[in-house]
Amino acid sequence: MATAAKVSKTENKNNHDAADEQADKEQQEAIEQIDEVQNEIDRLNEQASEEILTVEQKYNKLRQPFFKKRSDLIAKIPNFWVTAFVNHPQVSALLTEDDEEALQFLTKVEVQEFDDIKSGYTINFYFDSNPYFENEVISKEFHLNDTGDPSSKATPIKWKEGKDLTKKSAAAQKGKKRAHDDQDSFFSWFSDHADAGADELGEVIKDDIWPNPLQYYLASEIDEETGAGDEDELDEENLEEEDGEEEDFEGEEEEEEEEGDGEEEEG
Amino acid sequence: MATAAKVSKTENKNNHDAADEQADKEQQEAIEQIDEVQNEIDRLNEQASEEILTVEQKYNKLRQPFFKKRSDLIAKIPNFWVTAFVNHPQVSALLTEDDEEALQFLTKVEVQEFDDIKSGYTINFYFDSNPYFENEVISKEFHLNDTGDPSSKATPIKWKEGKDLTKKSAAAQKGKKRAHDDQDSFFSWFSDHADAGADELGEVIKDDIWPNPLQYYLASEIDEETGAGDEDELDEENLEEEDGEEEDFEGEEEEEEEEGDGEEEEG
Repeated sequence: MATAAKVSKTENKNNHDAADEQADKEQQEAIEQIDEVQNEIDRLNEQASEEILTVEQKYNKLRQPFFKKRSDLIAKIPNFWVTAFVNHPQVSALLTEDDEEALQFLTKVEVQEFDDIKSGYTINFYFDSNPYFENEVISKEFHLNDTGDPSSKATPIKWKEGKDLTKKSAAAQKGKKRAHDDQDSFFSWFSDHADAGADELGEVIKDDIWPNPLQYYLASEIDEETGAGDEDELDEENLEEEDGEEEDFEGEEEEEEEEGDGEEEEG
Repeated sequence: MATAAKVSKTENKNNHDAADEQADKEQQEAIEQIDEVQNEIDRLNEQASEEILTVEQKYNKLRQPFFKKRSDLIAKIPNFWVTAFVNHPQVSALLTEDDEEALQFLTKVEVQEFDDIKSGYTINFYFDSNPYFENEVISKEFHLNDTGDPSSKATPIKWKEGKDLTKKSAAAQKGKKRAHDDQDSFFSWFSDHADAGADELGEVIKDDIWPNPLQYYLASEIDEETGAGDEDELDEENLEEEDGEEEDFEGEEEEEEEEGDGEEEEG
């Protein structure tokens, strides 16, 4: 670090005498010492990052049995995942009618962060046997390598004959009309690795749906418009505006046990 | 039971028989159990946030003596801070020629995060006696109250007569030409509390300059053009390393904050 640092113009002097030389030398030493102190600070920052990572890993482990329990309970509810997806504004926009039909066979979603958390995550989609493809599990994995370059890979989908939803002609072949003729299927996401570093759907599932899928399963269309996640959406006004059915439960998550029996309606 | 959650259209049935009622009831119970599991997950998330905050607080304390040492060393280098500011692309854009002159009397900058980190921070600017104002310290404080509303306040500057750089006529009175006649002084930032929640200059100083001011002091004009943190003929490896570490650490903090927010919504 022998080179003098750039200083503001008023300090630039071309005629250095002995005193100047001495001052320069002292400043240079100070800069070197600042650099050393800075290294100490950086070391502390690294230690802090490591400790925070340890905490995150610990809680990732502690959450696992609850995620497992949640998955087992979700499996008891038909169409839980397709409903949660349909109720999520961003995900819903990615679903064609055919996608929604195929996703009714989706029984389990699983997000697994890699052990060191920062290097990536996998999303596993488990399907019942269905008319669309042979796979029981379709996974997409997002990976950051040591140099920070992102990549993704996914299970190839073994489509049944004439059922490949990622072929835009598929719907036409079936004589069906799709909501948007030019819309890609949700399933084409599995072969799209262009945005591995900032995969919007992957991040929505990991950061938004996975932390609390129940809120999306329960969210009504009106709630979507007013913003999911507000507590107000759980109130009874919404029930009346909506089709009636599902809203009551949500009304008050805390109170639903008392209310539950009294709410016989048309259903 | 009419309280079944909203499910996709294909599941809507209007003729419920006894079996349907039973299925509905089981689903309702599953939903209630999911809700309980979700509460457990939320509790773990909160605990994780608290532990991470504890780690951050611990390291904030551990860094203090090094920041103190760094400040003492920086004091030995004339014009350190004005040079760092001038070399920082964003801050430099905010400085008039008069500002640069006044900032040559800036001997110490200090960023203090509040103990709970999330509620705010203060930046203290220490000045040698100077022809511009009487203050030895000018501070700006950013505060988030309990409901998350941001506010800021700052030390009133006691300008010497005819020296108020925040009055646009000041430069003209002195017969000087300013780089941009209509540009506000850097010092008007101290009385600008409009963007307390996202104060650009405050955040640049806190998150970009304060973690490593030396890299900006050392940055050449060429670096400014190609982007700070690029290879530097003075101290290549060091600057690159430091950059990387700093980003890592901040990355952690940001992740944590996002988690925290999510929990609040879910709760």
